[in-house]
Amino acid sequence: MTNQQTLVFDEATIFNNLPGKNAFYQQDILAVSQFNRQKLDYLFALAERMRQVVEARGGIDLLKHRVLAALFYEPSTRTSSSFIAAMERLGGSVIPITQGVQFSSVSKGESLPDTVRTLEQYADVIVLRHPEKGSAATAAHYASVPVINAGDGPGEHPTQALLDLFTILEEMGTIDGLTIAMVGDLRYGRTVHSLTELLLEYNVKLRFVSPEILRMPLDLMNKVRDAGYDVRETYDVHEVIGEADVLYVTRVQKERFTDLAQYEQVKDYYTITPELLAHAKERMVVMHPLPRVGEISYEVDKDPRAAYFRQVRNGLYIRMALLAAVLCRGEA
Amino acid sequence: MTNQQTLVFDEATIFNNLPGKNAFYQQDILAVSQFNRQKLDYLFALAERMRQVVEARGGIDLLKHRVLAALFYEPSTRTSSSFIAAMERLGGSVIPITQGVQFSSVSKGESLPDTVRTLEQYADVIVLRHPEKGSAATAAHYASVPVINAGDGPGEHPTQALLDLFTILEEMGTIDGLTIAMVGDLRYGRTVHSLTELLLEYNVKLRFVSPEILRMPLDLMNKVRDAGYDVRETYDVHEVIGEADVLYVTRVQKERFTDLAQYEQVKDYYTITPELLAHAKERMVVMHPLPRVGEISYEVDKDPRAAYFRQVRNGLYIRMALLAAVLCRGEA
Amino acid sequence: MTNQQTLVFDEATIFNNLPGKNAFYQQDILAVSQFNRQKLDYLFALAERMRQVVEARGGIDLLKHRVLAALFYEPSTRTSSSFIAAMERLGGSVIPITQGVQFSSVSKGESLPDTVRTLEQYADVIVLRHPEKGSAATAAHYASVPVINAGDGPGEHPTQALLDLFTILEEMGTIDGLTIAMVGDLRYGRTVHSLTELLLEYNVKLRFVSPEILRMPLDLMNKVRDAGYDVRETYDVHEVIGEADVLYVTRVQKERFTDLAQYEQVKDYYTITPELLAHAKERMVVMHPLPRVGEISYEVDKDPRAAYFRQVRNGLYIRMALLAAVLCRGEA
Repeated sequence: MTNQQTLVFDEATIFNNLPGKNAFYQQDILAVSQFNRQKLDYLFALAERMRQVVEARGGIDLLKHRVLAALFYEPSTRTSSSFIAAMERLGGSVIPITQGVQFSSVSKGESLPDTVRTLEQYADVIVLRHPEKGSAATAAHYASVPVINAGDGPGEHPTQALLDLFTILEEMGTIDGLTIAMVGDLRYGRTVHSLTELLLEYNVKLRFVSPEILRMPLDLMNKVRDAGYDVRETYDVHEVIGEADVLYVTRVQKERFTDLAQYEQVKDYYTITPELLAHAKERMVVMHPLPRVGEISYEVDKDPRAAYFRQVRNGLYIRMALLAAVLCRGEA
Repeated sequence: MTNQQTLVFDEATIFNNLPGKNAFYQQDILAVSQFNRQKLDYLFALAERMRQVVEARGGIDLLKHRVLAALFYEPSTRTSSSFIAAMERLGGSVIPITQGVQFSSVSKGESLPDTVRTLEQYADVIVLRHPEKGSAATAAHYASVPVINAGDGPGEHPTQALLDLFTILEEMGTIDGLTIAMVGDLRYGRTVHSLTELLLEYNVKLRFVSPEILRMPLDLMNKVRDAGYDVRETYDVHEVIGEADVLYVTRVQKERFTDLAQYEQVKDYYTITPELLAHAKERMVVMHPLPRVGEISYEVDKDPRAAYFRQVRNGLYIRMALLAAVLCRGEA
Repeated sequence: MTNQQTLVFDEATIFNNLPGKNAFYQQDILAVSQFNRQKLDYLFALAERMRQVVEARGGIDLLKHRVLAALFYEPSTRTSSSFIAAMERLGGSVIPITQGVQFSSVSKGESLPDTVRTLEQYADVIVLRHPEKGSAATAAHYASVPVINAGDGPGEHPTQALLDLFTILEEMGTIDGLTIAMVGDLRYGRTVHSLTELLLEYNVKLRFVSPEILRMPLDLMNKVRDAGYDVRETYDVHEVIGEADVLYVTRVQKERFTDLAQYEQVKDYYTITPELLAHAKERMVVMHPLPRVGEISYEVDKDPRAAYFRQVRNGLYIRMALLAAVLCRGEA
């Protein structure tokens, strides 16, 4: 997917021949449920063009004189950096409210609606990270500029799910037909839930690998089964390693276990090593939302199937595509 | 005042036909006493042009390659965000020293003069927020680049007063002839003092509404009276609501009262509700420097007379105008 | 050295006729040992051009759409501000991770290699400040984009040494032939060690002035002596003030002394006053890496020989030159 074309897109052509190109214009981006197959196709095509632009020239002046307010009530260097770089590579600027908000006046008494209605006077788009579920929707309700949800606690983190899915497409050339295994904490893992939701737009086989106490929530399992998907749950990654086209790994936190002996007993079921990957397909990818803390050994990094840092890079392209799609009106 | 013109100003024309246009070139902006009627006229005309530019194109490249150092010794997300956005929409860049300065080397032992003389090596203008009165003047004394006072503790916050006055002009189309009521804490409220000073350049009636212990300071009252203004003090906003063209509301802090029973007794005199506004003129505006904590009920937000978020927006235009006026030399 | 030319360099000409101009392209900048005389000549010539550009036009669009990640694990307002301004005056953008990193996810568990490999997905260059010696080399080992060491604890801070040397050249017109006195804490002072290393590329006389317990480390003294330099150590700045062309002052920290009486006895030997400077040459310079805390009295600031704030300014030019040299490929 990444072969360089001689003709790279510019400000005038970047939206050319993209079906449904105004689908996101001035829209909030709050949840993965907003995205159907057609919208995903559009977004991923635009993200792929962003990749070409960045690789060829570093950026493109689509959002000159536009301002993004990055309002992070909890620090997230990875996510805020990604949005900041995305805006800057589009020629735009950022108000970085990304560190120490908890100490600032924003959080001293002022309500989220008032903060949002203040920032929209300065900025064209608000990217919000907030510890409370539903906060992004609240912000979007009050704001007249688009709000992008960069994580609302146990709620959603839609741009992570989008970059995950885009990574599968970029790495494997397709999504339909793949066998996708999710490994680790499937109960509390916000990213695996959102990714699973998005995958229901595609024709895939799903394998869920987790300890008993961290199984995929019942309602999501039922949704997947009712939709007729080939889905299987197991306790041990070894059972799926041979068939997986995508191994999506998340961390199993020790703290989730009341019985630490149990944790010690199962933890190796969810750790990715070169030995494990020896049983994997030659063409497959290992993904991880990062940061990792031991669940993928460093020796795996050298394996060409280790896609987690390329996954981070795709976050840049997806966020560039989203910002451009939200703030630019393509020609009719 | 906001009707869009077909011909929007650009880099070459934005200063055209503005009398007194070099009044602020390379000047510090420290106090409202620097501003006479002529300078206010110039600034507000330029700010109005900035509004047109932002509404039409997002910004204007007047300050390309210019750098603003935002040096905030105490966090103020609202004010720093406003200055950052203003600089960015002028095509300039920002060094954001806006969060956690209290933990950084800047505050570890180094004197304010040395910090300022360091930052001016990197930046073309310094915006300073500092908890001590007089700090902005000290910084300006040592700096060879312009210093803009973004609040020096109990001292001044001139850009707030300027945006307040500009808002009255934008909302009402004029300032002369209006009846302006200030409500709440008139004793400690820095903004109402500065706004009152500026209003002495205009022909207005003044109404001051506060609890006894939070009355406008004697010296400022005497200054207003000596200048021959029609001025009246009351305890209850109901007494002025019918005649006010502008209702400028500030918070009455519970903590100011030694006798809490007294606070409970009077607090409703200073709370703005739809019921109160039913007695107000059809064409008037409610303003507030924000953040608010209960003194204007949320139901008022929908009222077209509620101008406090438009007031925030005007802060962007005023700061754009000030930065441009300070850093750009208009043609003779 | 600073006389303005009528023809200022632009994007197309800034690298013209600079020998060895691709010496730093895509290189890490980790230690002063990377710099020989030829590379210093190149860097200083480019820095001098940056000065001309900034003085004439504020900046130059060499790094448009390029992004710098400023990753500061410990706050350093001075250094981070300098890099931020340098990148912005080159037309580039910054991801500012400069305040509160210790509280953010970057430092919660994630390893430096993973953090660096994440940030390089967003940024074209990483500027790293970290409290541990060797951290910059570790980061550079894992990163595929250039890493610039902005101080790795007791290790190096090469851009400080480069700006110090550049300042001597700019102020005195030459380096060869000068007598350079370093004063204060020569034992723990990272900057004086690096500067001394760099001076071994030049023909200079060295004078080291320090308390007994803060003398220049033995290995560095031996290196200087073995290279045949005219070098002398003394306890009192008065002994060298008459011959010094450069007086490089650092702080003698009270905390270094176990016997405070000893500190009180010697401290005046290392304090720069107008009275001391009365004995200095008419053409010489006083330098300091800043911040100062009493070791140079404020009355000295007015003396034209006081070069420490011009030294700060030269940091901007050196960092602009380094960023341009690392990220731009000059024509063959």
